[in-house]
Amino acid sequence: MINITKPTLLLDEEKAKKNILNMWHKAKANNLTFRPHFKTHQSAEIGLWFRELGVDRCTVSSLTMAKYFADAGWSDITVAFPANVLEHELIYNLARQCRLNLIVESVEVVESLATLIPASLGLFIKVDAGYHRTGILAHDWAKVEQLIDQIGIYPNFDFNGILVHNGHTYKCRGAEQIKNAHERSMDLLRPLMAKVKAKHPSAILSMGDTPTFSVMYDFDGFEEMRPGNFVFYDLTQVEIGSCSLGDIAVCMACPIVAKHNDRNQVILYGGGVHFSKDRVTVNDKEIYGLAVPLREGIWDYEQPIGEVVSLSQEHGILQVSPDVLSKIRMGEVIGVLPVHSCLAANLMGEYIITHGQRIGRL
Amino acid sequence: MINITKPTLLLDEEKAKKNILNMWHKAKANNLTFRPHFKTHQSAEIGLWFRELGVDRCTVSSLTMAKYFADAGWSDITVAFPANVLEHELIYNLARQCRLNLIVESVEVVESLATLIPASLGLFIKVDAGYHRTGILAHDWAKVEQLIDQIGIYPNFDFNGILVHNGHTYKCRGAEQIKNAHERSMDLLRPLMAKVKAKHPSAILSMGDTPTFSVMYDFDGFEEMRPGNFVFYDLTQVEIGSCSLGDIAVCMACPIVAKHNDRNQVILYGGGVHFSKDRVTVNDKEIYGLAVPLREGIWDYEQPIGEVVSLSQEHGILQVSPDVLSKIRMGEVIGVLPVHSCLAANLMGEYIITHGQRIGRL
Repeated sequence: MINITKPTLLLDEEKAKKNILNMWHKAKANNLTFRPHFKTHQSAEIGLWFRELGVDRCTVSSLTMAKYFADAGWSDITVAFPANVLEHELIYNLARQCRLNLIVESVEVVESLATLIPASLGLFIKVDAGYHRTGILAHDWAKVEQLIDQIGIYPNFDFNGILVHNGHTYKCRGAEQIKNAHERSMDLLRPLMAKVKAKHPSAILSMGDTPTFSVMYDFDGFEEMRPGNFVFYDLTQVEIGSCSLGDIAVCMACPIVAKHNDRNQVILYGGGVHFSKDRVTVNDKEIYGLAVPLREGIWDYEQPIGEVVSLSQEHGILQVSPDVLSKIRMGEVIGVLPVHSCLAANLMGEYIITHGQRIGRL
Repeated sequence: MINITKPTLLLDEEKAKKNILNMWHKAKANNLTFRPHFKTHQSAEIGLWFRELGVDRCTVSSLTMAKYFADAGWSDITVAFPANVLEHELIYNLARQCRLNLIVESVEVVESLATLIPASLGLFIKVDAGYHRTGILAHDWAKVEQLIDQIGIYPNFDFNGILVHNGHTYKCRGAEQIKNAHERSMDLLRPLMAKVKAKHPSAILSMGDTPTFSVMYDFDGFEEMRPGNFVFYDLTQVEIGSCSLGDIAVCMACPIVAKHNDRNQVILYGGGVHFSKDRVTVNDKEIYGLAVPLREGIWDYEQPIGEVVSLSQEHGILQVSPDVLSKIRMGEVIGVLPVHSCLAANLMGEYIITHGQRIGRL
């Protein structure tokens, strides 16, 4: 029995486990190493749900998160964020605690790591295959080769291969666009990998992003996959076409604290400090969440009751129909499917699963 | 000496204390009760900086925050968020621990509180004077009167008066627009307060919002002021016209982790989990932060070096000039003035003040 009195992040264990199993099957079917990104859930306990399937390596987005999962027993961790040499003490400690893989994209950083870290490190070279956030451009073989050679100088460094995150698939809508974006990236990466493997036959290509691994089934030309968001999914992924509303595994329970009959709006206890301020455009309208009925900790995604149209620090404004408005009672708790589950989970200290169990996180 | 290795929220104690003193003077000069909103800093220690000036009451945005400040010795607390009856146990405990003031806007909520809270409570009626987030519309005297009468039924409830937050001043640009917005609200509130005081002479009008109290000097027609953001200010307040860049008292220290010479961009360790995703439009461009040089924990707001043009979970993309780019070193730490200091402070666990002292928060 769940007693909800304030914004609470509910987690449907069955849906999350189904999402994990689907992705695990896809990795198996394509003979890919599955190194899921744990930045979405940040929870040692949810990590065990992957472990039960035999997953023994993971991806994180910070060294702090790497430390948390290393302490939870993960022995092979990739930090998919440009190596931050200022955290060299933590890098050194982690490198002795587990197999630690960092990503690099400049000679300066490799040199700093060589000076500061007298321990074994796996290094991926970060390559940009179209997203244009960070990484060496995929056609810049001279720069990639220079880095491979430099990594090779240091006996404590292993060159793992190339790491890519195709974040631009988040701008796609529908499987066809996502598939095209992936194929365009692979058109850049195949010739690059041919050169990389000619120099370093054991080098792998590691690919990220939930949209690609959600909508595609057959993969070729790389060895490792690192999706993360799929464990929970969210409204953004529904809009992209990665999943359906029924796949979303987290829902924010929000008390109703005021009603406005003159404008068919309801005020929720649930704001930017719970959801973050990420928004998604649905039918040409920017929304911050989709409200659904909630009963005994179970939400009904098939009967949305309104859209969160505005968020301030603690308030959410929910737009509903006059019919829904007439039925909503003050003090009732409704569910809100989040726009970005990673950031909502990051803001909330814990998850409550349907039968009331609390699951902690970093 | 401050050793920064990852995103760290720096606090300039002198600037914050100057901001507090300025606002305290304004309250004194206008004979207004100063009940600062503590949702921005959420810190018992920063609360003491107000206490040193004799401030003995405060505003918060959640019952959780009320509990934190009650435990820190604050004995008169207003929760400026519609009373959430589901948290009745916490309300009851707090009502016995301190003078607790809640805001109400419906008969149902007053009835629920009467049933659930056998303790003294101060109640404000929330009135909407133009913001249209929540509250009874200022011209709806019938509804206000009904609520005053209903509150009067219960001997443990004190009717404090009317509480207004003019959040629509955040859409203003410049003192003239803010002053006009305030005057339009007061045009609605003066006749309302005349009626309220005719029924209940001790009732007060409590007004919120940092822009109004930052740009105006003379106030008339109300008794209490509750600004909050002014303690730190931020880029949003600079754009509104509430303050100048030099008044911003917090700055996120962010390590540089990658450089992109081809597009004059730098990758910061600093993303949505540090800043939140609030953005502000400056010169027709949406930005997520303003980068400034940082040395020994002191930032130089007079020499901005670039704009944060994008944020993902842990990454920030900073656009700079070729000249700045050529001088930035990998592993250097730069400062970023935040777009919304309340949400950035909420995401960070603590503040570091210039000489290295750590200040905790809720």
